[in-house]
Amino acid sequence: MKMKLDLEDYGIYEGISETIVTTSRGWSINAAPMGIIRRKDKLFLRLFKGSTTYDNVLSEKILVANTTWNAITFVNSTFSDLNDSEFESENCNGRTIVSLKEAQSWVAFECTNTKLTSDALVAELIPIRTHVNKCLIRAPNRGFLGVIEACIHGTRYQLTGDEKYLKLIKAYGDIVDKCGGETEKEAMKLLYGYL
Amino acid sequence: MKMKLDLEDYGIYEGISETIVTTSRGWSINAAPMGIIRRKDKLFLRLFKGSTTYDNVLSEKILVANTTWNAITFVNSTFSDLNDSEFESENCNGRTIVSLKEAQSWVAFECTNTKLTSDALVAELIPIRTHVNKCLIRAPNRGFLGVIEACIHGTRYQLTGDEKYLKLIKAYGDIVDKCGGETEKEAMKLLYGYL
Repeated sequence: MKMKLDLEDYGIYEGISETIVTTSRGWSINAAPMGIIRRKDKLFLRLFKGSTTYDNVLSEKILVANTTWNAITFVNSTFSDLNDSEFESENCNGRTIVSLKEAQSWVAFECTNTKLTSDALVAELIPIRTHVNKCLIRAPNRGFLGVIEACIHGTRYQLTGDEKYLKLIKAYGDIVDKCGGETEKEAMKLLYGYL
Repeated sequence: MKMKLDLEDYGIYEGISETIVTTSRGWSINAAPMGIIRRKDKLFLRLFKGSTTYDNVLSEKILVANTTWNAITFVNSTFSDLNDSEFESENCNGRTIVSLKEAQSWVAFECTNTKLTSDALVAELIPIRTHVNKCLIRAPNRGFLGVIEACIHGTRYQLTGDEKYLKLIKAYGDIVDKCGGETEKEAMKLLYGYL
């Protein structure tokens, strides 16, 4: 039971937590939005082949799941690279752990029992280090989640070119216009610019 | 600038914050999900005629916006009444303030400059008391927001009987199944039961 309580202290609840996963390999560092799957006290991550996160996890067997509610970070890390200045790194038992400076909290995981399929990798995650920067209280905002959904459909649009995804993005953009704050509106503008 | 910083400490950011608004009149207490609209440092609430919150706010000119991430509370307060045991009350300068025990934080507002239209009320909100119970870190969960969207479409379905809303609820239900934790899944079951 201890692990369960600990992980909730760092933002990781049952179901799929939408985190920004940071990884590194040599001098190269990367951030990408990824869902951390938690079923009871088991944790998993599914990564599709061809992404930098996939390559880094396969090589280093370590990743950091960052909790943040910054919609701009979700958009930029989905469609582009974050600036090096947005990361910080530390040494944990001889291994490099890279996280986001702005994260409310993060958990570093060791990846074990990695299973490869033809197009993806599924790893079990074992927490090896946790960190809290700040705790913010924030009421739910439909605009923030509109940005997350728009990122997902934006990725699908880039993969398939199917215009139905543009319609969905526009529908979520309307929710962002109505319900979002300045950060969510700016994030949506950036997202349209990437497509 | 002080008010702006204060309100973020209690969960109320720019845009529309999805809160549970608690009100009372005499012995009757009520909870309903309501969006608190914040543009810069101005706060507003729009209430449709016919709801208990509308009647209570018109009569008492006071309300409490509670920040919670409990999906079951959103569903129950949308489609039914919460139990009396879920509320707590206190006296603030001779006025009764009713809030949710489980809220992470709440802000009590005085309603001023109330404007009535044929079907709604728009009030400006002035914070008169704030409270923090606990600060929880929680990564975004698409399932949680799926429940919020499903509540909105469920209300529209009850008002109009239009089956397109059932399709939308089902689509969000699929996101809850995939991404939600136990609480979100239970909330969705309750929601289907109310329709």
